[in-house]
Amino acid sequence: MDYKILNITNIISYIKNIKIIKDYFAEDSLHVNEIGDGNLNFVYIIKSEQNPQKALILKQAVPYLRCVGEEYPLSKERMTFEIRALLKYSELTPDLVPFIYDANEEMSTVVMQYLSKHIIMRKGMINGIVYPKFDEHISTFLAQNLFKTSSLFLDSTCKRQFVDSFNKNVELCKLSEDFVFSFAFMEHDTNGENARNNETAKKLFADMEFKKNVLKLKYKFMTQSDALLHGDLHTGSIMLNQNETFVIDPEFSFVGPFGFDIGALIGNLVMSYVSHLHVSKNEQYQKWILKLIEEILTKFEQKFLSLWAEVDESALHVKGFIDSKSLDEFKKEFMKNILRDSVGYAGCKMARRMFGMAGVEDIRAIEDKNKKNIAEAHVLEIAKKFVKNYEQVESVKDIREMII
Amino acid sequence: MDYKILNITNIISYIKNIKIIKDYFAEDSLHVNEIGDGNLNFVYIIKSEQNPQKALILKQAVPYLRCVGEEYPLSKERMTFEIRALLKYSELTPDLVPFIYDANEEMSTVVMQYLSKHIIMRKGMINGIVYPKFDEHISTFLAQNLFKTSSLFLDSTCKRQFVDSFNKNVELCKLSEDFVFSFAFMEHDTNGENARNNETAKKLFADMEFKKNVLKLKYKFMTQSDALLHGDLHTGSIMLNQNETFVIDPEFSFVGPFGFDIGALIGNLVMSYVSHLHVSKNEQYQKWILKLIEEILTKFEQKFLSLWAEVDESALHVKGFIDSKSLDEFKKEFMKNILRDSVGYAGCKMARRMFGMAGVEDIRAIEDKNKKNIAEAHVLEIAKKFVKNYEQVESVKDIREMII
Repeated sequence: MDYKILNITNIISYIKNIKIIKDYFAEDSLHVNEIGDGNLNFVYIIKSEQNPQKALILKQAVPYLRCVGEEYPLSKERMTFEIRALLKYSELTPDLVPFIYDANEEMSTVVMQYLSKHIIMRKGMINGIVYPKFDEHISTFLAQNLFKTSSLFLDSTCKRQFVDSFNKNVELCKLSEDFVFSFAFMEHDTNGENARNNETAKKLFADMEFKKNVLKLKYKFMTQSDALLHGDLHTGSIMLNQNETFVIDPEFSFVGPFGFDIGALIGNLVMSYVSHLHVSKNEQYQKWILKLIEEILTKFEQKFLSLWAEVDESALHVKGFIDSKSLDEFKKEFMKNILRDSVGYAGCKMARRMFGMAGVEDIRAIEDKNKKNIAEAHVLEIAKKFVKNYEQVESVKDIREMII
Repeated sequence: MDYKILNITNIISYIKNIKIIKDYFAEDSLHVNEIGDGNLNFVYIIKSEQNPQKALILKQAVPYLRCVGEEYPLSKERMTFEIRALLKYSELTPDLVPFIYDANEEMSTVVMQYLSKHIIMRKGMINGIVYPKFDEHISTFLAQNLFKTSSLFLDSTCKRQFVDSFNKNVELCKLSEDFVFSFAFMEHDTNGENARNNETAKKLFADMEFKKNVLKLKYKFMTQSDALLHGDLHTGSIMLNQNETFVIDPEFSFVGPFGFDIGALIGNLVMSYVSHLHVSKNEQYQKWILKLIEEILTKFEQKFLSLWAEVDESALHVKGFIDSKSLDEFKKEFMKNILRDSVGYAGCKMARRMFGMAGVEDIRAIEDKNKKNIAEAHVLEIAKKFVKNYEQVESVKDIREMII
């Protein structure tokens, strides 16, 4: 099928040609609305008029950045990588991503389950909502998807073919390289308003120990092909409620370093913590976030290691190569390195949200300007600790000490 | 053009259709001979009968491993990666690879300069020949090709596209993973005769500290996309004389860790050193080899850093991001890590040649069985030091101490 841009008038005839969707809606009349909150893509909700509970989401990439317009061209093939990541997640962790009804690389579209009873995690956290199952869910998501797309699980050929299937996501990787690791830490015209004449920003931009380690982490981001990354796993890429968690929007996906997604998540949880510390002052909630960070990291490691224990042949490991004691020692060091990188990436992700182009609502939306400045400085203080000391982290406990 | 297997009878009509080759030989009558020393591929020499100085080499990959036969299928597309590597080398270091007259990915052929006045370096070294310009040549080859195919030089998109163009060399990467990092260090039926009932082999196979670090190096080989690697840069992949050096046979090429090619070369030089120590007992030559290793590593670092000094924008580095003192510190640590990995890979490459399927003539051809055993044990002693201590190497000087 040749690519064409969909809109609220031609979507219905498009989806009526897709059997699974036709079956889903049966003879219902349909109503299409655009949901205007995507930065990159067009997102539509298709609802049954007879039964508004019956609804699906259609997402289409256009050959430019939606939030800017046609003057910012961006290859629509980014959807290809979102589709491939979603299909891999559906295979490995079907309960943790929306159900995919249809995905079409030529049309750059995906049609998926409408999450009507779930909200974006960032909003939930700003409102102080506790999610008691989130640590279980997200640690499973991370362990399953990182482990089972790595050379610790796949054989050599499958791994290299898997890398190959994401290797062309060059534009979005470049965006991460620029915006997560570079522009937000220097004078740059893409930075936010608040970077100008700001003493805290100036101090950050002049912190060379911080920047040296950012270069190391950036280099690893560009060259280390550990496993499938979501590539943008902040709390805005998660929809959830008390019982269910769904990861969405993996358009930045590629095969990169293990620690990057974990770090993105932890960094965003820390920003929520700092926000509550200075704004809501809700101590219970702060405690819950700190505990949550620990639980996620601890459970991730347990689950990753228990998946690893089930495998005796992989690209890395030939059966009988090494005794189990030595293999355990190797694994222990391996996991420590993942933890270290996660802390480093968490720091980059936090710091880049302060003065870079894309802020986070938890901090940027603080109305009291004085409080906002204090929160920004506090986030940066933790972020710098993370980035400067990530290579010395020994255990999950160390991270709590760097935060509080 | 559809793929067909060439042979001495149809080669002439094949090359007569290629203008540059037709021009080269003009109206001369041609004579074709097969050179039977390739493991993987068929290699032919095409000579002018009127002027035997005029000659070209044609190399073609067939869909199996030449030295075993059709029962060992191996995708002929391996030639695609050899061609791509040769063309990149021709662009970056034209004096250090044979001149390429024609390269055809569909036909899996390459037609190149015949090196009539050069010999395989391994043979030369077994005969104790000193090559006074080799350190200059090979350090240039390594610095130019590693630096200019890395994220330190290319921009983000070019780098990812470059990785992509080698990413499908899966079969030959798998051969390296198996034979360089796994089978040669355990009981395996691909090992050489001499691995059976051999106390030294048993000790190696039981050395878990060695194997733990081999796993680390193997993991990095599989997942670290630093730069274009030759992939098999031993002294058998180099043809030279007193004045010229040519690197040949990059069919194992892919984008991998910086230290792998350097390590392969150093490891093979060390094996030559050990061979001379126990067999020829030529002290001058041993000294020359030790000096050569130092010179190669030192000059490589100087040349790599001076290329780096010319670049102020790359995938890694945005102009103005970091001050020059901090960037120098970053580079210093970066170079140290390349050196460390090189030592680690040198150790793997040496150790795998002792009992694995593919030996090196420097050691395996030692006629006196006692001397051969001593030489093998000595190579392994150094190899183990390299592998177990590579992460502690601080400078080039440390390596000499680990050898003598």
